[in-house]
Amino acid sequence: MYRSHTNGELRIENANQEVTLAGWVQKSRDKGFMVWVDLRDRYGITQLIFDEDRTAKEILDKAKTLGREFVIQVKGTVIEREAKNKNIPTGEIEVLVKELIILNEANLPPFTIEDETDGGEDIRMKYRYLDIRRNPVKNNLIFRSKVAQEVRNYLSNQDFIEVETPYLIKSTPEGARDFVVPSRMNQGEFYALPQSPQTFKQLLMVGGMDKYFQIVKCFRDEDLRADRQPEFTQIDCELAFVDQEDILNIFEGMTRHLLQKVNNITIGDFPRMTYEHAMKTYGNDKPDIRFGMEFGELNSVAQQKEFKVFNDAELVVGIAVPGAANYTRKEIDKLIEWVKRPQVGALGMVYVKCNEDGTFKSSVDKFYNQEDLAAWAKATGAKAGDLICVLSGPANKTRAQLSALRMELAERLGLRKPTEFAPLWVVDFPLLEWDEESERFHAMHHPFTSPKPEDMPLLDTDPGKVRANAYDLVLNGNEIGGGSIRIHDKETQALMFKHLGFTPEEAKEQFGFLMNAFEYGAPPHGGLAFGLDRLVAILGGQETIRDFIAFPKNNSGRDVMINAPAEVTAEVLSDLNINVTIPKA
Amino acid sequence: MYRSHTNGELRIENANQEVTLAGWVQKSRDKGFMVWVDLRDRYGITQLIFDEDRTAKEILDKAKTLGREFVIQVKGTVIEREAKNKNIPTGEIEVLVKELIILNEANLPPFTIEDETDGGEDIRMKYRYLDIRRNPVKNNLIFRSKVAQEVRNYLSNQDFIEVETPYLIKSTPEGARDFVVPSRMNQGEFYALPQSPQTFKQLLMVGGMDKYFQIVKCFRDEDLRADRQPEFTQIDCELAFVDQEDILNIFEGMTRHLLQKVNNITIGDFPRMTYEHAMKTYGNDKPDIRFGMEFGELNSVAQQKEFKVFNDAELVVGIAVPGAANYTRKEIDKLIEWVKRPQVGALGMVYVKCNEDGTFKSSVDKFYNQEDLAAWAKATGAKAGDLICVLSGPANKTRAQLSALRMELAERLGLRKPTEFAPLWVVDFPLLEWDEESERFHAMHHPFTSPKPEDMPLLDTDPGKVRANAYDLVLNGNEIGGGSIRIHDKETQALMFKHLGFTPEEAKEQFGFLMNAFEYGAPPHGGLAFGLDRLVAILGGQETIRDFIAFPKNNSGRDVMINAPAEVTAEVLSDLNINVTIPKA
Repeated sequence: MYRSHTNGELRIENANQEVTLAGWVQKSRDKGFMVWVDLRDRYGITQLIFDEDRTAKEILDKAKTLGREFVIQVKGTVIEREAKNKNIPTGEIEVLVKELIILNEANLPPFTIEDETDGGEDIRMKYRYLDIRRNPVKNNLIFRSKVAQEVRNYLSNQDFIEVETPYLIKSTPEGARDFVVPSRMNQGEFYALPQSPQTFKQLLMVGGMDKYFQIVKCFRDEDLRADRQPEFTQIDCELAFVDQEDILNIFEGMTRHLLQKVNNITIGDFPRMTYEHAMKTYGNDKPDIRFGMEFGELNSVAQQKEFKVFNDAELVVGIAVPGAANYTRKEIDKLIEWVKRPQVGALGMVYVKCNEDGTFKSSVDKFYNQEDLAAWAKATGAKAGDLICVLSGPANKTRAQLSALRMELAERLGLRKPTEFAPLWVVDFPLLEWDEESERFHAMHHPFTSPKPEDMPLLDTDPGKVRANAYDLVLNGNEIGGGSIRIHDKETQALMFKHLGFTPEEAKEQFGFLMNAFEYGAPPHGGLAFGLDRLVAILGGQETIRDFIAFPKNNSGRDVMINAPAEVTAEVLSDLNINVTIPKA
Repeated sequence: MYRSHTNGELRIENANQEVTLAGWVQKSRDKGFMVWVDLRDRYGITQLIFDEDRTAKEILDKAKTLGREFVIQVKGTVIEREAKNKNIPTGEIEVLVKELIILNEANLPPFTIEDETDGGEDIRMKYRYLDIRRNPVKNNLIFRSKVAQEVRNYLSNQDFIEVETPYLIKSTPEGARDFVVPSRMNQGEFYALPQSPQTFKQLLMVGGMDKYFQIVKCFRDEDLRADRQPEFTQIDCELAFVDQEDILNIFEGMTRHLLQKVNNITIGDFPRMTYEHAMKTYGNDKPDIRFGMEFGELNSVAQQKEFKVFNDAELVVGIAVPGAANYTRKEIDKLIEWVKRPQVGALGMVYVKCNEDGTFKSSVDKFYNQEDLAAWAKATGAKAGDLICVLSGPANKTRAQLSALRMELAERLGLRKPTEFAPLWVVDFPLLEWDEESERFHAMHHPFTSPKPEDMPLLDTDPGKVRANAYDLVLNGNEIGGGSIRIHDKETQALMFKHLGFTPEEAKEQFGFLMNAFEYGAPPHGGLAFGLDRLVAILGGQETIRDFIAFPKNNSGRDVMINAPAEVTAEVLSDLNINVTIPKA
């Protein structure tokens, strides 16, 4: 027992108790005749006091030698503080020290162990074990643990069984790139690390497990975009004998449970929105609905005049930016520059200021009169004081551009409040999407996703219009989960493969053993998967997943702390029967 | 909603209710005018009845077409059964079917989906998704899920934080072989899959996480012995500011919690036994103490006569086999053959029958009189009716041989009862073990394991005698967990490296970044890890871990269901900058 109490535990009620504490020296103040030390551990900070009247000289002298981040153990008496600190729970007391043991010295850390540190990202990642001592990182990890445990509590109470699926599986040619693992015992052969347990969870349904979940690491060897990790964590779920409605209800319940338990927020029924509606209204299949700025389509009111740009466009669409009518010319020009950045790609932007006096001032006054612009304001819901931003062009591209602008403006206007939560379901995703390159339809989700029965006839006439029983759970503009009802009967599956351009032989080759399994009595089933890293970050009011991962990798897939990946010895390669084909650096 | 109830749910109280059920056809009996179907799902079996008086003809006819493992949905009325089945919870009712939908047909399964199946191991592994439908496998997986959830409940209640450590880490030259993962983005470099999160959990302690746990997959590329898996699951734990006693108490509590929650068994304080005592008394550092047969050392009573074999032996040691005095000569000869098998390796066995009349009959009557043999009986605790088995030779080898014999006899005598649980701690493991090959001492646990302070002086004089603060939790003759207090101060660590024959430079090279981390204020810490696969198997009253893994690999490390590992395409290899160095088969 190195301690009788943690450093977050003592209160005024403990006054006069003899206690033993241990922890790190957060900071010390040496007044000569008196030394104060803030002693820190995971649970909090307790102030220690050494003084020449009440502490033995050699202890006081030793206290003067303590450096930041030294690990110490003290015995002493809890006393009431003269100057109380209302900011910390232990702020009413301090510990008058009688014994001091230095358990371990510490080099000066390369950055300050404070909430606001002086260390940049790179140095903090290299010394991540010191970064974790800082409250923001530590609290994120504790928060993550709590979210995971609450997920398990909820699903276990709903009769879900957590089943561990294998990590050493088989590489599949489709989809994203696998990480592969050479097998020493099976020469020339490789395992693959799972991109998700999709196949195994469907097999568990064939196996009658009925309700499965797993919190599981998945792996994807992609060129890393910002805030993607080569290894990431999924809450993976699958259920048998359910339809879409059952799944939405259960996982809406889970999300509500999490919001209640970890954020102390009660949320009612989640709105449901079709994919089509989301795209038309927000230009995005994961809309942030914490704020308005819904799209107003202006074709009917903007294409009757001489403005060729709009007349030639497939879509003219605008949003009303609340209270932005007073933007200066310079501010608006900057906005126009912003939408013209290659990442957004608009060719320009038309704007209308809705003046407080009810008049309008636009960048296209040459073509449109006040009545025209009033119609625009009506279509976009703009009120006096708002700024209407209008983009035009091909429908899909223009929607995506306006969506980017909408999110950017919401961010600037402080409308994306991290403590406000607005979940919704986006449903009725298209079953198929056209691939320009191969000039055929591909499954948007995967080839086992079930089409909506009522849309089946469209498969022959207008495949792009067929909707799937596929759904995403969206929270504050982020997709936090998604899934689908799977096809479980041979006839639909055969039809599906036909429309995806597979011969029966090709289908067998690519999806062989899952299709085999389906021959032995597959139940109706479906499921979904949540991205735990993102879910935790968003519940934690942040969007950077790296801040919620204990030991993340950088954008080159490196762990800079342990310096991985690294070269391996010739002996290792020889055991595995592989060669590296590039010369050593 | 495919069902209003599961197939394990309906009782006599539900009589006359209209219900919808779904599941698999376990079996059907067709009496012509009447058809019974056992409908199965994860939750149980419900009997369906179709008859010509009460069921529409086309439904009855359809029922006659149902094959084993067809997936069906029925609507009907719950009625009381005429012939009740006391063996199943739903045995008082049946469902009179009005509607029948065949959700999916099924090929005849390659083995019967029954508790006692006709399928051998190989075919069941190939069709594991069908094997999982069988109660024994299904129940094992449900049991595993429950154990894992109870572990999490217990540790979370004790303020442990579950932290996910990375799977893509760095290969280390020591220890068992790593699985490695070529990095595409870092040409010529490799990640390794973790053999355990040892380094990371110690870094989390340096990072102040205080109490860490994780249920985590680990990987070891070993030549697989029976019942070893290349990927296995650990309950990995580490704590700061604790001594050995704290750790033993917490994890004894956890094990007691599991026995209570999943086995409904209350167990008091766990015995603690030193490594030395375990080796002398059971010849084994993981003794099964559910039964006696403790070793009796016979040197003092057997080496005073003319029997050269014993006189030349370092150790003469025996066990009393209860009630085995009536073994026939043939049975005893078989036992002698058994100990002479190469896997055991004894050169022979001496025996003494303790007759009911108090006399003794031994295989060495030529050398020993009744009084001598009575002394042997006393030393081994043999009573009238017992058989004393005696082995001799070099001490360590002989103890191992006698331990093997003891376990074998206990198995044959039915003393290893799967529903009886006898946990114990084995403590005071040696710090170092002599390696014949390199002719130097190696760390028995790892180089960061703390020696007992009181044994430190022996490091210079008799290193093999130094005991470590290392401990194993043993359950029914299996090591289910083990760990140690780590060294946290520089002086002890430097001394340790010196005695292990490392120069400071070598130590830095091999254990570099962990030693670096230790420069920044490492707290006293220690931990342990449980093997979840084995723990679950033993709590489940079995010893084969494969039966508690959803998708296990065979002894060649293959998943025969998905046929992994497998060759990958030349494109994959080229992306990864590696070549396979053997010709394709």
